[in-house]
Amino acid sequence: MSVNMIVVGSIALDTIATPKGKREMALGGSAVYFSTVASYFTRVGLVGVAGKDFSEEHLQFLRSHGVDLEGFEQVDGKTFHWAGSYSDDFGDATTHATNLNVFESFSPKIPESYKKAPYVFLANIHPSLQIKVIEQVEKPKLIALDTMNFWINGALPELKAALKKVDVVFLNKQEALQLAEDTKLVPAYRKILEMGPKRVIIKMGEIGALTATKDSSFFVPSYPCKDLADPTGAGDSFAGGVMGYLAQSGNVTENGFRRAMIYGATMGSITVEGFSLDSYKELTRNEMDQRYRKIFSMIKVD
Amino acid sequence: MSVNMIVVGSIALDTIATPKGKREMALGGSAVYFSTVASYFTRVGLVGVAGKDFSEEHLQFLRSHGVDLEGFEQVDGKTFHWAGSYSDDFGDATTHATNLNVFESFSPKIPESYKKAPYVFLANIHPSLQIKVIEQVEKPKLIALDTMNFWINGALPELKAALKKVDVVFLNKQEALQLAEDTKLVPAYRKILEMGPKRVIIKMGEIGALTATKDSSFFVPSYPCKDLADPTGAGDSFAGGVMGYLAQSGNVTENGFRRAMIYGATMGSITVEGFSLDSYKELTRNEMDQRYRKIFSMIKVD
Repeated sequence: MSVNMIVVGSIALDTIATPKGKREMALGGSAVYFSTVASYFTRVGLVGVAGKDFSEEHLQFLRSHGVDLEGFEQVDGKTFHWAGSYSDDFGDATTHATNLNVFESFSPKIPESYKKAPYVFLANIHPSLQIKVIEQVEKPKLIALDTMNFWINGALPELKAALKKVDVVFLNKQEALQLAEDTKLVPAYRKILEMGPKRVIIKMGEIGALTATKDSSFFVPSYPCKDLADPTGAGDSFAGGVMGYLAQSGNVTENGFRRAMIYGATMGSITVEGFSLDSYKELTRNEMDQRYRKIFSMIKVD
Repeated sequence: MSVNMIVVGSIALDTIATPKGKREMALGGSAVYFSTVASYFTRVGLVGVAGKDFSEEHLQFLRSHGVDLEGFEQVDGKTFHWAGSYSDDFGDATTHATNLNVFESFSPKIPESYKKAPYVFLANIHPSLQIKVIEQVEKPKLIALDTMNFWINGALPELKAALKKVDVVFLNKQEALQLAEDTKLVPAYRKILEMGPKRVIIKMGEIGALTATKDSSFFVPSYPCKDLADPTGAGDSFAGGVMGYLAQSGNVTENGFRRAMIYGATMGSITVEGFSLDSYKELTRNEMDQRYRKIFSMIKVD
């Protein structure tokens, strides 16, 4: 079965401390969170690199979710490693270590069978690599890009070149303000829409997320989780829910994006209830749809 | 015609500087913003005090909106005066002067004809005075209270006593976090719901506003104003829209509150498009309802 969506991003082993506990060298990385979440919606192919220390158990986890691994490479060396901790309020993470390892020389190669995938998600990697992926794919229906403050600071011309080539950009609020050099959300997203993308999606953590085009805007509130365990991967899971729904439904109308945003909030909230990708060990589509309906009920007005 | 709602709060003359201009001794005050906005929905009585410098023109403005002034007192001395300025991004105001003047010895006296009003809004005044109002009214259907960091810091026991006696509390996000002694929104509003009110309404400026009870939560996004002129009074106008709709419709169900929140966002966004209360010089119900429908369309998902 050919893949309907591809994701290019990191594969990681994360050491995480939160007020709820600690995990050493747990499965992580933007492409892993994204593809696992998106696998609940559609057939997704993962393009990324891991080292020899990446265990068969992790690969089996991805395979069991139906993630296509033709674009996955395993090379000599160690897997990308991130170590971080969250304060008592689960606020911003403090990074203790970022060891790029095999990810440092990652140069995405898109398998032939992935090149016609209609949906492409460029997770947070160097914008030059994001452009390299765009040059390899053949007229996808929708390309979305995620990025971070590190590239806004360190690779702005490349990021701006990449933004001209994508349909949707995912940012968090701080990144959006920084990219637009503004202090307010609405003028900031208007400036970003001038940079190329037809749509921005701005994540605001526990508050919710906004999507806007030149003509529309929509806000989805965050689901009020009772038992937050580990915020790692929330943003990539949000994107996985959004893009997963779009790829599954093929509905890229305004209303399609609104439903997709609710699925984004759904999956973000499910991810943070467990450490690493634990929430996806036994999650059913039915549980997902229940959460979707709860968030839907938080915005419904008659 | 008897009043359907009363508001107790400040009447002020404000000197305001924003990136769009400057106004000296302009009409302001929480009870003025609230009653003017609420007058578009229902018959509202204003309880407040002004000095001899409060001009007949301002009284005429209120009367022309149908605001009942039986609870309005004019006494020897000067009207409460606030002077402040907003930075280039219309962020938090810097206060240059707060002269309480006649407001310092304000002790609200509720006219007989107001005592059976079913809706009561206690704008931001000392919580002891808020309690004094509650003691004078006769079993209203709904009492709502607004407050500010000044009382959270300086009159916390009185504020907590007042919270036990009201149905709804309005706060901004910083105030909610401060009152709950928390750093995150969801645990914060859960703690505030334990303090007495059945519902919290948390205003988040350009992002939007949240309302929550023990069993529900709902978020309304802010309308993305293109021409922000003066943020003064946005919160009181939001409350005026919320309470105005509730008082007009009598619909205090969850769905009624959701519609009310959209009217809150509507009126907040209309207020900030003009200096002082200028937006209400010519506003029609039809223009209001158009804005309501625009915000409604920002949250509608099929």
